[in-house]
Amino acid sequence: MNSKLPKTPAVYVKSKSFRLADVDPDDITPFANRPDDKSDVAPRLLELRRRLSELQELLYAEHRRSLLIVLQAMDTGGKDGAIENLLTGVNPAGVQVATFKAPTSEELKHDFLWRIHAQTPKRGHIGVFNRSHYEDVLITRVHGLIDAKTCQERYDDINHFEQLLTRNGTVVLKFFLHISKDEQAQRLQARLDDPAKNWKFDPNDLKERAYWDDYQQAYEDALRHCSSKDAPWFVIPANHKWARDLAMSEIVVAALEAMNPQPPKVDFDPKQQVIV
Amino acid sequence: MNSKLPKTPAVYVKSKSFRLADVDPDDITPFANRPDDKSDVAPRLLELRRRLSELQELLYAEHRRSLLIVLQAMDTGGKDGAIENLLTGVNPAGVQVATFKAPTSEELKHDFLWRIHAQTPKRGHIGVFNRSHYEDVLITRVHGLIDAKTCQERYDDINHFEQLLTRNGTVVLKFFLHISKDEQAQRLQARLDDPAKNWKFDPNDLKERAYWDDYQQAYEDALRHCSSKDAPWFVIPANHKWARDLAMSEIVVAALEAMNPQPPKVDFDPKQQVIV
Repeated sequence: MNSKLPKTPAVYVKSKSFRLADVDPDDITPFANRPDDKSDVAPRLLELRRRLSELQELLYAEHRRSLLIVLQAMDTGGKDGAIENLLTGVNPAGVQVATFKAPTSEELKHDFLWRIHAQTPKRGHIGVFNRSHYEDVLITRVHGLIDAKTCQERYDDINHFEQLLTRNGTVVLKFFLHISKDEQAQRLQARLDDPAKNWKFDPNDLKERAYWDDYQQAYEDALRHCSSKDAPWFVIPANHKWARDLAMSEIVVAALEAMNPQPPKVDFDPKQQVIV
Repeated sequence: MNSKLPKTPAVYVKSKSFRLADVDPDDITPFANRPDDKSDVAPRLLELRRRLSELQELLYAEHRRSLLIVLQAMDTGGKDGAIENLLTGVNPAGVQVATFKAPTSEELKHDFLWRIHAQTPKRGHIGVFNRSHYEDVLITRVHGLIDAKTCQERYDDINHFEQLLTRNGTVVLKFFLHISKDEQAQRLQARLDDPAKNWKFDPNDLKERAYWDDYQQAYEDALRHCSSKDAPWFVIPANHKWARDLAMSEIVVAALEAMNPQPPKVDFDPKQQVIV
């Protein structure tokens, strides 16, 4: 990641002593002083969207590098909404969103990165992972499907895999959308109260909610072990959706600005071309 | 296709005696009387975008059917711009755009529909083909890479393949963006004149332009043979980009309205769920 980070509530994970509990999911500074004081937010979001759309077109024209955005969160953390808000307005022909659910029986016949690798973005594209290879050091660990040694090995595998991608010209940005346990309760309740949202509720989410503390620990460890300069993790305070969206947009646009994509040079003389 | 077609300049190909030359690429009726008289266009496009975004979310929630939009055109016909205008504003997580170029050596080891089949949209998704299996009865035919018998067999193969998709719940809409030869000359020249557009110019396009009449004939034949009620072809007059975009939006939204996607019913009682 470029050294000039935009000013957002997001926390860039740099150290092995990083503590998730130190990040306040309600944080909105420096965007605003109070959650209802956000008069400057809408125009800035619009400006970032316009710029993202321009940069995506240049990335596509250049056709040499790509951007991968990895999104992880607890249930109701806002992954779907964040993707929609970040990328709505960008030409969908240059975007690939991959959603990873429980692996299929075919996928389980391979190593855990096999299905992930198949979905990495093509040159010129922005790829988004809605959940990712990190599930293989989160849910699997919380439920004791892998032991500590395997988990450590997977951190290594993940770091090597992301290094391969960055060496091939893919900039990797990873976002953990950080909500509080209370906020999750409210969002789950909203899905139950509104009949139009009932289909988004999965009774199984309540079982996972019981493992809240174990998940926070598993996230903290994964973020500590798998954040690097080339493939950084950002913890995004995400109780306030508008602050979450603005922080992500700022970071993504800054990363693309640093990439500074250029349209390719042509190998013909435009003046010599005659159209008949 | 539902019998109630929206009123647009588009021509729905219904008959084996369809003539491409009868469609005027400049046609803008009933949208406007003159190309510069389009005061009602912007609000209508906005309304269609809003509705498309809602319908896409319902299609995604329903998770049972999908929509496939096939785009074909002569070079500079506006496929990229049409896709961008149609789908910008739709949640990219529910959209898959596949761009088909010259087949790779691996793809050539299979039948011509193999690589196409792999890119058909998942349940709940809108898929877009930027070029498609129709190239295999267009460029191949114009350049004599297949004979008349093979071409006829491929029309059959295509019809059977699209029938398989529609039987599986995929609504198939096919658009030929119809520009005039003069319009193509102007668009190619614009790519030469504007340094920022130079990279979009391919000197090879001039060679293909020399086969203009052969391509028009190949398109006419493909459209005659491969347009059905379930997988119709629409010829979109496309000299005026705004009319092209509006026509496509009207047809796509009407098709989704006819599908009438519904969120799935839940199999639990929301009142019985307790969040602790």
